[in-house]
Amino acid sequence: MLNISQRGLDMPSSPIRKLTPLANAAKARGVKVYHLNIGQPDLPTPKKALEALKNVDREVLEYSPSQGFLSLREKLVKYYGKFNINLTPDDIIVTSGGSEAVLFAFLACLNPGDEIIVPEPAYANYMAFAVSAGAVIKTVTSTIDTGFALPPVEKFEELITERTKAILICNPNNPTGYLYSRSEMNQLRDIVKKHGLYLFSDEVYREFIYTGSPYISACHLSGIEQNVVLIDSVSKRYSECGIRIGALVTKNAALREAVMKFCQARLSPPLVGQIVAEASIEGSEEYEAEVYEEYVERRKCLVDGLNKIQGVYSPIPMGAFYTVASLPVEDADDFCAWCLSDFEYEGETIMMAPASGFYSTPGQGRNEVRIAYVLCKEDLQRALFILEKALDAYNAR
Amino acid sequence: MLNISQRGLDMPSSPIRKLTPLANAAKARGVKVYHLNIGQPDLPTPKKALEALKNVDREVLEYSPSQGFLSLREKLVKYYGKFNINLTPDDIIVTSGGSEAVLFAFLACLNPGDEIIVPEPAYANYMAFAVSAGAVIKTVTSTIDTGFALPPVEKFEELITERTKAILICNPNNPTGYLYSRSEMNQLRDIVKKHGLYLFSDEVYREFIYTGSPYISACHLSGIEQNVVLIDSVSKRYSECGIRIGALVTKNAALREAVMKFCQARLSPPLVGQIVAEASIEGSEEYEAEVYEEYVERRKCLVDGLNKIQGVYSPIPMGAFYTVASLPVEDADDFCAWCLSDFEYEGETIMMAPASGFYSTPGQGRNEVRIAYVLCKEDLQRALFILEKALDAYNAR
Repeated sequence: MLNISQRGLDMPSSPIRKLTPLANAAKARGVKVYHLNIGQPDLPTPKKALEALKNVDREVLEYSPSQGFLSLREKLVKYYGKFNINLTPDDIIVTSGGSEAVLFAFLACLNPGDEIIVPEPAYANYMAFAVSAGAVIKTVTSTIDTGFALPPVEKFEELITERTKAILICNPNNPTGYLYSRSEMNQLRDIVKKHGLYLFSDEVYREFIYTGSPYISACHLSGIEQNVVLIDSVSKRYSECGIRIGALVTKNAALREAVMKFCQARLSPPLVGQIVAEASIEGSEEYEAEVYEEYVERRKCLVDGLNKIQGVYSPIPMGAFYTVASLPVEDADDFCAWCLSDFEYEGETIMMAPASGFYSTPGQGRNEVRIAYVLCKEDLQRALFILEKALDAYNAR
Repeated sequence: MLNISQRGLDMPSSPIRKLTPLANAAKARGVKVYHLNIGQPDLPTPKKALEALKNVDREVLEYSPSQGFLSLREKLVKYYGKFNINLTPDDIIVTSGGSEAVLFAFLACLNPGDEIIVPEPAYANYMAFAVSAGAVIKTVTSTIDTGFALPPVEKFEELITERTKAILICNPNNPTGYLYSRSEMNQLRDIVKKHGLYLFSDEVYREFIYTGSPYISACHLSGIEQNVVLIDSVSKRYSECGIRIGALVTKNAALREAVMKFCQARLSPPLVGQIVAEASIEGSEEYEAEVYEEYVERRKCLVDGLNKIQGVYSPIPMGAFYTVASLPVEDADDFCAWCLSDFEYEGETIMMAPASGFYSTPGQGRNEVRIAYVLCKEDLQRALFILEKALDAYNAR
């Protein structure tokens, strides 16, 4: 009689979650686990953000406006201005992390049964939010052979039906690190315009672009201003994932009005998080430069190291702090689990995210893993060494 | 082409929100507005909670566990123990405010089209979360004549269909201040058991009970342990609405597993809020006693004052910090708007929440308002005086 809802049953559980008990068991055996699986940077939060916490001078930690503090939205306007994204504070709705921005975008734009086209591999939680909203994700597959470039426009066209209401991209991309080119973004603009679709663009990694290529935001595309919904978050760029501050940005006033109803129902985004975020934004050039340099080195260390291991291939990720690499194994799910349950080298092992969790198409990415470079270089080097040993041992069984 | 979703259109906008521009305009004219409409206590957050903020000693404001910190859940177990609610940390899922707990309960338990029975008047955002989840709220009407007691069981039975999956109560009640008696809670237990329904029980006001009557939690009802989902929040009891920390509590392991999938998708509840909440819980007896005494006095001041005004009637609210009063007007929506747009007395006026926003049944509560006693006694007295003047002027037009 006491049913769980269908969506409660349908919600995906990522392969990382399945590995967590194995990792915990390994740790309980005294094995050191290098976490190549997570998106939580190890870098410190900006000092002045931490100071802002200590300086909170309020007697009451009261509700903040449902849209978020105007002062924060004004600072965000300046911040986006640096990227030639021209906004007013009204265009910005502060959310509880980028997660809430995705959920509210889906809830406000899509009816149950409506379809969103997403290039895969893709951030696994998009699927979870789609299930929450009763929406259906259709994927076009990008492949490691092309470095995870945007699939040809025809592949999108093939999927478009009258239920298609949106295209969702993540740029720079989690999990692949791919950065869409101007030409690819223009193709997306044309298809969105032609079919009257929303373009949801998750751009939380824009600080992390390592090639000379320009960052082309969905907000830079002219002629589809009403279609674009920018998903953002301060989590990654200031290493403050825990404060849960994101944003939903759109020039579409009717959509903002609908989204605001969901925001009003949940009353307000986190008060203290907004204070921390605001302190993080201004004058953080030095912090950002340091962080950037660190990731440049880590990326080189990781990708060079991966491609030196026999049978391993990683395209050069252009942005974010992940890469998807192929391994000389048949089943990366099994290999990742085995690394935690059956393997150790000098008391150490590695945890990686099997790429299968980022694909909807069965069988895709079976020999691929996502590796995050959020560890320091020394740890990355050691983890790569252990990966090599693990592959040898796994394939010699 | 760019549609807003049906639920985006259907989301209710509370009458308070319609009044906000009028209040802002009044303030712009220099009129002082007494806010009798809000649920944000003016009382200070506990000092040690504010100190905990200043003492956050972390280099990285990182993700916390999706279920919430174990240390917080352990403190909550002790806290609930004081109310004879016996839990383990596993029974508790920390959420972003009570709001998220309601949304996730609906998402995990109810399929689109499933029905929840709610006594009205009811907290308006339940409707918003039901719309978000595609669920349908059916109301049984409680009336001011009976002091907003639980409607007869037959009224519930009449509404139960095969789509009925849950009963939702708020106890002590927002907006009425009603506290369900043991006998009423037993009636709910029986009906829930008989029909295999969930019992969602929002008990965020349990600290605020002013009669000698016992607090009967849904968690006290034996035989329906698997049916009960407790919705909770630290917002009201520690005057820290802005930290966005709530909880979903249930002994139903299958349900927790489903809820956790929604929690994992949104990654984690606010980190800093959890630190503040944890600091608020232990050893806060003195704080709670002071706050309690303050509300006891405010309640007496407000209810006595209301019932002294000719034509005004307020039942004596037993809990929370609201009352629903009837006014000698035909249309409280109009009167509340008029107070802000057309009236002032010595440069001051009042803002109240028309009760219509708390009823689903058209025409119900048309002459009623919800008044919160979250202002200090002097302000409440002045606001009551102005209400009397406003009623005189309104009815003399």
